[in-house]
Amino acid sequence: MGERLVVIGGDAGGMGAATQARRLRPDMDIVALEKGSWTSYSACGIPYLVGGHIGELDQLVARTPQQFRDNHRIDVRLRHEAMGIDLDRRSVEVRDHDHGRTVRVPFDQLMLGMGARPRRPDLPGMDLEIVHGVQTLGDAAHLLDHAEHGPCDRVVVVGGGYIGLEIAEAFVQRGSAVTVVEQAPEVMRTVDPDMGAMVRAAMERQGVEVRVGVGVEGVADGVVHTSDGDLKADLVVLGLGVQPNNELAADAGVALGAGGAISVNRRQATSADGVWAAGDCADSYHLVTTRKVYIALGTVANKQARVAGTNLAGGYATFPGVVGTAATRICDTEIARTGLTEHEAERDGFGFHAVTIESTTTAGYLPEARPLTVKMLAERNSGRLLGAQIVGQEGAGKRIDVVATALHNQMTVEEMTHLDLSYAPPFSPVWDPVLVAARKAAGVVAEADEIR
Amino acid sequence: MGERLVVIGGDAGGMGAATQARRLRPDMDIVALEKGSWTSYSACGIPYLVGGHIGELDQLVARTPQQFRDNHRIDVRLRHEAMGIDLDRRSVEVRDHDHGRTVRVPFDQLMLGMGARPRRPDLPGMDLEIVHGVQTLGDAAHLLDHAEHGPCDRVVVVGGGYIGLEIAEAFVQRGSAVTVVEQAPEVMRTVDPDMGAMVRAAMERQGVEVRVGVGVEGVADGVVHTSDGDLKADLVVLGLGVQPNNELAADAGVALGAGGAISVNRRQATSADGVWAAGDCADSYHLVTTRKVYIALGTVANKQARVAGTNLAGGYATFPGVVGTAATRICDTEIARTGLTEHEAERDGFGFHAVTIESTTTAGYLPEARPLTVKMLAERNSGRLLGAQIVGQEGAGKRIDVVATALHNQMTVEEMTHLDLSYAPPFSPVWDPVLVAARKAAGVVAEADEIR
Repeated sequence: MGERLVVIGGDAGGMGAATQARRLRPDMDIVALEKGSWTSYSACGIPYLVGGHIGELDQLVARTPQQFRDNHRIDVRLRHEAMGIDLDRRSVEVRDHDHGRTVRVPFDQLMLGMGARPRRPDLPGMDLEIVHGVQTLGDAAHLLDHAEHGPCDRVVVVGGGYIGLEIAEAFVQRGSAVTVVEQAPEVMRTVDPDMGAMVRAAMERQGVEVRVGVGVEGVADGVVHTSDGDLKADLVVLGLGVQPNNELAADAGVALGAGGAISVNRRQATSADGVWAAGDCADSYHLVTTRKVYIALGTVANKQARVAGTNLAGGYATFPGVVGTAATRICDTEIARTGLTEHEAERDGFGFHAVTIESTTTAGYLPEARPLTVKMLAERNSGRLLGAQIVGQEGAGKRIDVVATALHNQMTVEEMTHLDLSYAPPFSPVWDPVLVAARKAAGVVAEADEIR
Repeated sequence: MGERLVVIGGDAGGMGAATQARRLRPDMDIVALEKGSWTSYSACGIPYLVGGHIGELDQLVARTPQQFRDNHRIDVRLRHEAMGIDLDRRSVEVRDHDHGRTVRVPFDQLMLGMGARPRRPDLPGMDLEIVHGVQTLGDAAHLLDHAEHGPCDRVVVVGGGYIGLEIAEAFVQRGSAVTVVEQAPEVMRTVDPDMGAMVRAAMERQGVEVRVGVGVEGVADGVVHTSDGDLKADLVVLGLGVQPNNELAADAGVALGAGGAISVNRRQATSADGVWAAGDCADSYHLVTTRKVYIALGTVANKQARVAGTNLAGGYATFPGVVGTAATRICDTEIARTGLTEHEAERDGFGFHAVTIESTTTAGYLPEARPLTVKMLAERNSGRLLGAQIVGQEGAGKRIDVVATALHNQMTVEEMTHLDLSYAPPFSPVWDPVLVAARKAAGVVAEADEIR
């Protein structure tokens, strides 16, 4: 028998590494353990399923266990939950839920891809049946059942982040009355409050009730208690972000890093020999702050997994890190960010200038021109680009990728003004909004230079 | 009286420099000479006007002469045509067409922004009234008149480049029968033929007749003679690209450069002291080939103009160069390119690998997912990105900007695979198509390494 790789977790982090390892090592014996009933699915697609845009839950599955077996010779074991890792004996203790038995699975290499779970505040009633997360396809099936068969007349979403706002929109599309409760002064804490206010306005235009500065104090049957009174609820959805599934690793003595996630180096190696991690259970290196960070996103998971798979197969690959890019569409509004927000820049001690510009998604004279706002941060003196946020209508969001690419290359805002970006009337004004923002930021940096 | 700037040409190149100079130098005396009747207009918008998407010709004017006078104190003189430049006496000989007189206008600094004109092949009948270019607002008015009042039952477009295909679409939308005649084996010579074939197919789906490999031999009243027989035509539109208006500069002894355009250095200075040039009459530096190149595009004109304006006002600014980005939408198809095509790479002696991938504009499971194709070129051995071309439906084209930004930073395709690009189901698959192409290119480079 060849070298054996055991993978814990059947989604992007684990299976991406497994398929990459298979590509490089036809001889490897690969076993993947998944405690749930699905492999390689798009958690990001759940709001679109609940909203009725996708016909079938199965459409969110990129690869089935059978496909992994047939096409990649990976032995996927569903409803097999890893209960413990023994690094000395190099084996995983596994609970086989279908047969009610526990077995030991030995490994030579171990790939950790346990993912994350929704944050669930330590408050009364948070374990009631009406409280749901939005993470697994099991969650998706529950939420879809509510959406299609009820009850979901009144939905309360706790937390105004990406997933919370996306699921709020989905239930509004199903005809529910939806209230989002957010403790912070503004929704969408991943952008600055001035940009978040535009997102809230877009949601309110679509009929979502948004209560900011309101804390949830507990859930009872049919009611959410908040600092601003009780809200009736047939369904409560958690949108407070996720926390890494770190317990197995921690118990085995594998070092944890940023945000309690498993600490990995640039090759996705953990502190334990022959043990690798990727995806929502692992931390990342932030290329702008030069600090470790915990960012749970499918894009990062897929990239990390490929790198981990190459390395555990004996190759060499590195994941240099992230720049903090994220995007979503809420109602008719696209929101995208990369790099650092004002708050994040301040926290890391950056001195900066922030500029905001208004432009349009196409040449202003075309009837399809839509407004968009770009906010850009540049470091004082150096003029180095630190980040940007974009809020606008159709065609606005993807422009953030230019800023992300500029961040990877540590460009200054002055250098960015020269970028040869594409233009045609249906795509952009002749000065792309990103260039307009860079020009304004470069101007502010140059003027401020005099009193540096 | 302060130092006097004379600007020849009232569009992007000239007026962009003039307004930037005004910003920096309140004292300057600025005179702008424009032989036509409009200033600062979007030539790129003409097809949208002709196609009926824009109500009024005036909507294509970004700034009127009156606005330049009132807001920028620029003395704009319409229907004033520069006839000669006397560098020794530092004056311009100007024909005032309204008053039928010729005057001399002295300058301290001279800004050349004469733009370009449509290429008109030296064939019989090319000066007939039914033959039109697509360049000035005068052309726009003529074409609009044809579109609205006829005759335009049968339109022949000579040349299958951007403007030719855009204007073909516009007349099809007006109900005309349109034939595009292209001498080359495929339309859209700015992309490789395999990509151009997709554009042609899109046009044919919309009812445009496209004849490739066919040469035009002349025009007579109501007929276009081609190497493949005669075509009836109420209207003939030239889509053969443009040539720089270089005569004034050449006659004055100002050095010409790439493509016969005025040669400029990185500050947009010409060979003559105190004489600057920008826009479609000037050449550019190509950051990928490290050669001079002639590229006539509004984006480049605007950037060059700003730099020229800063420098002639006594400041310091540079235009590092272009990477060859261009984009358009033809019918339902978006086409974008940057860097080098296969043909261009070969001509410059680059050894390269070319890869092509198919993907979708959004997550594949969303009903709005549209196909797109990305072709990417990477240099042999080094793996350096050389260029990319994208053809696809709505949401495809603007992705080219990531590649353009990567080219500015001389990234390798391997480095590009790490780019932290935005993802959400409505924006992209979890691996953005640009990353998929970079991954494939990096793989080919790595494999080919072994036999370098």
